Amino acid sequence: MFDLKTYLNSRQILINNTLKEALEKILNSGRILKAMEYSLMAGGKRIRPVLCMAGCEAVNGKIENALPVASAIEMIHTYSLIHDDLPAMDDDLLRRGKPTLHVKYDEATAVLAGDALLTYAFKIIAAAGLSEKKNDNAQKWLDIIFSVSTEAGCEGMIEGQMQDIASENTHLSIDKLQEMHLLKTGALIKSSVLTGAILGNGTKQQIKQLEIYAKNIGLAFQVTDDILNVEGDPLVMGKAAGTDMAHNKNTYPSLLGLKKSKEFAEKLIIAAHDSIISFDNKADPLRAIALYIIKRKK
Amino acid sequence: MFDLKTYLNSRQILINNTLKEALEKILNSGRILKAMEYSLMAGGKRIRPVLCMAGCEAVNGKIENALPVASAIEMIHTYSLIHDDLPAMDDDLLRRGKPTLHVKYDEATAVLAGDALLTYAFKIIAAAGLSEKKNDNAQKWLDIIFSVSTEAGCEGMIEGQMQDIASENTHLSIDKLQEMHLLKTGALIKSSVLTGAILGNGTKQQIKQLEIYAKNIGLAFQVTDDILNVEGDPLVMGKAAGTDMAHNKNTYPSLLGLKKSKEFAEKLIIAAHDSIISFDNKADPLRAIALYIIKRKK
Repeated sequence: MFDLKTYLNSRQILINNTLKEALEKILNSGRILKAMEYSLMAGGKRIRPVLCMAGCEAVNGKIENALPVASAIEMIHTYSLIHDDLPAMDDDLLRRGKPTLHVKYDEATAVLAGDALLTYAFKIIAAAGLSEKKNDNAQKWLDIIFSVSTEAGCEGMIEGQMQDIASENTHLSIDKLQEMHLLKTGALIKSSVLTGAILGNGTKQQIKQLEIYAKNIGLAFQVTDDILNVEGDPLVMGKAAGTDMAHNKNTYPSLLGLKKSKEFAEKLIIAAHDSIISFDNKADPLRAIALYIIKRKK
Repeated sequence: MFDLKTYLNSRQILINNTLKEALEKILNSGRILKAMEYSLMAGGKRIRPVLCMAGCEAVNGKIENALPVASAIEMIHTYSLIHDDLPAMDDDLLRRGKPTLHVKYDEATAVLAGDALLTYAFKIIAAAGLSEKKNDNAQKWLDIIFSVSTEAGCEGMIEGQMQDIASENTHLSIDKLQEMHLLKTGALIKSSVLTGAILGNGTKQQIKQLEIYAKNIGLAFQVTDDILNVEGDPLVMGKAAGTDMAHNKNTYPSLLGLKKSKEFAEKLIIAAHDSIISFDNKADPLRAIALYIIKRKK
């Protein structure tokens, strides 16, 4: 019987150690490093790096090979949170139970620490590729940098955030809302699973199936985030609730209501499960994570 | 006789066309793309991409091979200007003769467009590497991503900007000022020349010499920027003068005086010339650019 709690715990320890080691390698001990560390090591569920490792495992790869990319993706996720929290964007004061970076330090440091995490993420991937010393694998690493920069960039996550800002105080259709979330949250989640599968040497067919899996859980993740923003416990979540409504944001609960939103999230998770039905028990973590995504309380 | 004006002109056309093509490839036609385009195509001297191509030429490489990386570096430079201009940082209203991005659009768009240019830069380099289809070259591209992400990151340019902000209203020694500028301006200029030389298959000895060249012109570039901020013509520069003094910034003129600052810049350019004395006439562009850097009016 697969125990998700133990699994998540061991993976989180692994990723936290890798992140710490990555920060220790930086030739800088000043304010910028402390700011990067403050946000990066503030906890967090580490869902994206866990998915990267689980994607690698699911195709029978070694999770150690996925660790550098997994940590790079967590850095990109953290940078996006730092910038999204800025006064000019969501103007959030609390993140992962602590003051947001621009509150703890200042706005300039928050902008630069975000920039630094994003830049360092690509350095980590390049360094991992170079450390292999096997030239015949180098192209795989370029594939990964291409995927991550596409999904995190203006054709992915950043466009999602732009759409999110633009949609405040306007009414979105459910299709437009879905498009926005597939970009804002879905793109980096997709890249997490797929780069993991690339690193595990998955087949084209496996990668195709995992793409459907990732798309479904990515969307379910956002629907659940929206639901938690309505009925979640701020103390458990480590961030304020009710902020979406205060910002007049388009969310699944605001468009569908809470009940239908929950049903929709469940449908997505069933679709995610179906997409990897042909995988063996090495994909059990992916199956359990899919369920966890809609059952989580933070 | 080498004619720098014609040379710079032809190179600027080349890089502008490459940048335009790169933007056209982006699968997005919304506000974020327009914002990226606004800043990226606002003119500018294109010094860094020109140096990247000239570094490639100097070791007898084909400049076409340097174009993708040259344009990626210009994107990184542009992102750094967008973020540096933000109200939380230098709070500049004018850049390259036009309103800064956050003035023309808004702060949120400026933060995100900067993020997008930085991310897209790495995609362009990865795509260029993948398009070669020669696996034995892939490692070279990882080297380049490693170099660019190091020099642009918290061990390079971003740390320089942090030091710049921290030093406002404090008094820096000339050594500290130099350290700051070698990071803030020098790091990306170094990466421009060196990645060009890597792409041109330069020898280790050549790359070592070019590193000294780049360090010297990078510093000379900043000294000249400081001088122009005192005595430059805002109409020619396309940005305000006197802002350093208004922000109480440590600059070469404020520490050394104008006359000694100019002598120092000249010394640096002589050192840059000396460092590549063994190169043949293929390095003439690098020699001419070094002189141009301290003679420019904007």
